[in-house]
Amino acid sequence: MASAARSPQLRKDAVTNRWGIFSPARAKRPSDFKSKSPTINSNPNQECPFCIGHEHECAPEIFRVPPDNSDWKIRVIQNLYPALSRQNPDSNAVVQDSNANSMILEGLGFHDVVIESPLHSIQLCDLSPQDIGDVVLAYRTRILQIMCYNSIKYVQVFKNHGVSAGASMSHSHSQMLALPIVPPTVSARLDSMKEYFDQTQKCSVCEVQGEDHLIDASTHFISVVPFAASFPFEIWIIPRDHSPHFHEINDEKAADLGGLLKLMLKKLALQLDNPPFNFMIQTSPLDITASELSFSHWFLQIVPQLTGVGGFEIGTGCYINPVFPEDAAKVLREVSVSK
Amino acid sequence: MASAARSPQLRKDAVTNRWGIFSPARAKRPSDFKSKSPTINSNPNQECPFCIGHEHECAPEIFRVPPDNSDWKIRVIQNLYPALSRQNPDSNAVVQDSNANSMILEGLGFHDVVIESPLHSIQLCDLSPQDIGDVVLAYRTRILQIMCYNSIKYVQVFKNHGVSAGASMSHSHSQMLALPIVPPTVSARLDSMKEYFDQTQKCSVCEVQGEDHLIDASTHFISVVPFAASFPFEIWIIPRDHSPHFHEINDEKAADLGGLLKLMLKKLALQLDNPPFNFMIQTSPLDITASELSFSHWFLQIVPQLTGVGGFEIGTGCYINPVFPEDAAKVLREVSVSK
Repeated sequence: MASAARSPQLRKDAVTNRWGIFSPARAKRPSDFKSKSPTINSNPNQECPFCIGHEHECAPEIFRVPPDNSDWKIRVIQNLYPALSRQNPDSNAVVQDSNANSMILEGLGFHDVVIESPLHSIQLCDLSPQDIGDVVLAYRTRILQIMCYNSIKYVQVFKNHGVSAGASMSHSHSQMLALPIVPPTVSARLDSMKEYFDQTQKCSVCEVQGEDHLIDASTHFISVVPFAASFPFEIWIIPRDHSPHFHEINDEKAADLGGLLKLMLKKLALQLDNPPFNFMIQTSPLDITASELSFSHWFLQIVPQLTGVGGFEIGTGCYINPVFPEDAAKVLREVSVSK
Repeated sequence: MASAARSPQLRKDAVTNRWGIFSPARAKRPSDFKSKSPTINSNPNQECPFCIGHEHECAPEIFRVPPDNSDWKIRVIQNLYPALSRQNPDSNAVVQDSNANSMILEGLGFHDVVIESPLHSIQLCDLSPQDIGDVVLAYRTRILQIMCYNSIKYVQVFKNHGVSAGASMSHSHSQMLALPIVPPTVSARLDSMKEYFDQTQKCSVCEVQGEDHLIDASTHFISVVPFAASFPFEIWIIPRDHSPHFHEINDEKAADLGGLLKLMLKKLALQLDNPPFNFMIQTSPLDITASELSFSHWFLQIVPQLTGVGGFEIGTGCYINPVFPEDAAKVLREVSVSK
C-alpha cells in the first residue's frame, strides 16, 4: 500500500480544529483492516421489548410512524434509563451551585430512543433508502418538538451499533439526547468554523470536496473520509448545499440521505467484516445568531469501532490513526456493493 | 446509596472546562461497580521481549536504571511501532502543506517505552513506593533529555494496563510520546486555568481540596475524585504545592508520589476487581510564559476502564458518569488495603 512508504504526519482539520496523527508504522494494510469484534447477528426469531407486540414492556411512547397504527414502522419512545430528567424541562436549567471553581446545573433534558424497525432481525442498513429516510424524518420531527423548550440548547442524535460501540440492545435503534448546554465538541467546532470563515469568507464544510477524500455522492449529499480523520475509515456524509441545521432537511433530501447512508453502512460492513460502529449527527446549537448561520454546516459522522482508546487519547484529545484518509477513501470508493 | 435518591446533574470543572453528566438512573450502586473485563494475570513464568535477558528482541535502549548494569530495574527504550518519526527531530517541525482548510506537519517526535520491572510477573502496584518513585524519576530523566529539542512542545506520559485499556503487552510498562504540538486537551486546560486565575487570582488546581472529594493524602500529594469526573472512579493525584511542570519533581517527592500511586492502584484493584486502567501525567507545555506559570499545575489522572465510549461521547465530548464523585471518593476512602 502507498501508506507503507509514508512518513508519519500530523494534520489539523479546519472544521473540528482537531489534530490527527497518521502513523503508517502502526498500520496494517487498509485492505487487511477487519473488526476484531464483529457484530454478532442476533437470532432472527428472538424477541425483545423493542419488538412489535412488546410495546407495553417499554418506557412511554412519544410518537410512532405511521401514527395511531398498531402496524408501526418506527417508534420514538422515552429511554428507560435516561441520562437526564424530563421533570420540568420547560423551565430554564437552574444553576444549583456556582463559584469560580465549579458549576452545577440541574440535569434537565430528554433522552429518547428511536426504534428503527418493528422486527428484531432487521438492521438499519437492511431498510430501503426511503425507509431509512423515514427514520431521519423521525429524528427531525422529534427535534422540532423539543425545540419549543427554551432550556434545550443542543440535541445530539446518535446510533450505537454493536456491544463494543456502546449498544445495550441488539434491536436496531438510535438515541437522541436533548441537552441544557452546548457541548464542548460543538462549541469547538463552531469556533473553528468561524475562524475559517473569518479568514476566507467561506464555509469550511462546503469546502470539503477534495477528490482524494471522496467516496460517493448522491443528488444532495457527498460522502468523504475527512482530511484529518480521528478514526480509521471514519466517514462524513455532508449536504452539498450550505445548511446549518440538520432539522431543516426536507422529505426528498431525507430519502436521498437514506440511500447514501445505506451505501456507506453496507460498504463498511463488507470491507471491515460487519464492525461495531457509531454515527452522530453533528449539527449546530438550536439558538445561533444570523452571522453564525453563514459558517455552520451540519454533517453525519460515521465511526467504525476498530481501535480502542488508551491513555494517550484520553490525555491529549489527539487520536493516532494508522490509515491515511486518502487510502481509506480509495478502499471505500472501490468496494462493490450488490444492489 | 445516597446517589439513588439524587436527580441528574451537569457539572463543569474549572480545571478542564469539561461538562460531566451525573446520572443516577444509569447507576448501579457504587459498591457494586466491578470491571467487566478484569485484567487477566499473565502466567508468572511467561517471558516476553520486555523481560530481562530478552533485551536484543526490543527496539534500541535509551537508558537503563541503574546505568550500565545487566541486572537492571527499569529500561527506557524506543517503541518498536512508533507513532512518530525520530528522524531529524532537532529541526523544527516543517509545515508540509497549509491552507486555511488544512494543516500538515511532519510527524517528528519520540515515542518511547518505560519497562517498569525486569520480571514479567510484577505489576507496577507490586513495586515498593521507592521503586515506583524510580519509575517516576525515569519519566523525569527522559523528559529532561527530550527538552533539548526545540521542536518538541509537549510530552505525554501515559500507562495502559490491560487489553481493553489499550495495552498490547502484558509486561508492566508505560509510554512517553513527545509531540511537536500542544495537544487540544492541554490547550483547553491551560485556557480554563487562566480564566479561573483571571477571576480569582488563584490556581484552580491548588483550590481542589474539598473534603467530600478527598480520598487520601501523603506528605506532598493529595488524591481526589474530581468534582466533575468524566469517568466513574476517576482519580487525580495532585501535588500539594503549586507546581506547573511534572519534570520539576525531586527525588523525595517522587518516592512520596510512588507511595500514593501504589495505594490508589491497590484500592482500585480491590474495589473494582482488578480493572483495566489508564493513567496520564497531565502537565504543562514545555514552553510556557512566566504568567502562565502562576496558574498551571500538573497532576496525575487515573481512569479505570469500566464503561465504554459510544456515539454520545464521540459526538459531544461530554461523558455520562453514573457514579457521583462524592460517592466514589467515599468508597475509595474507606477501602482497606493491607500493608
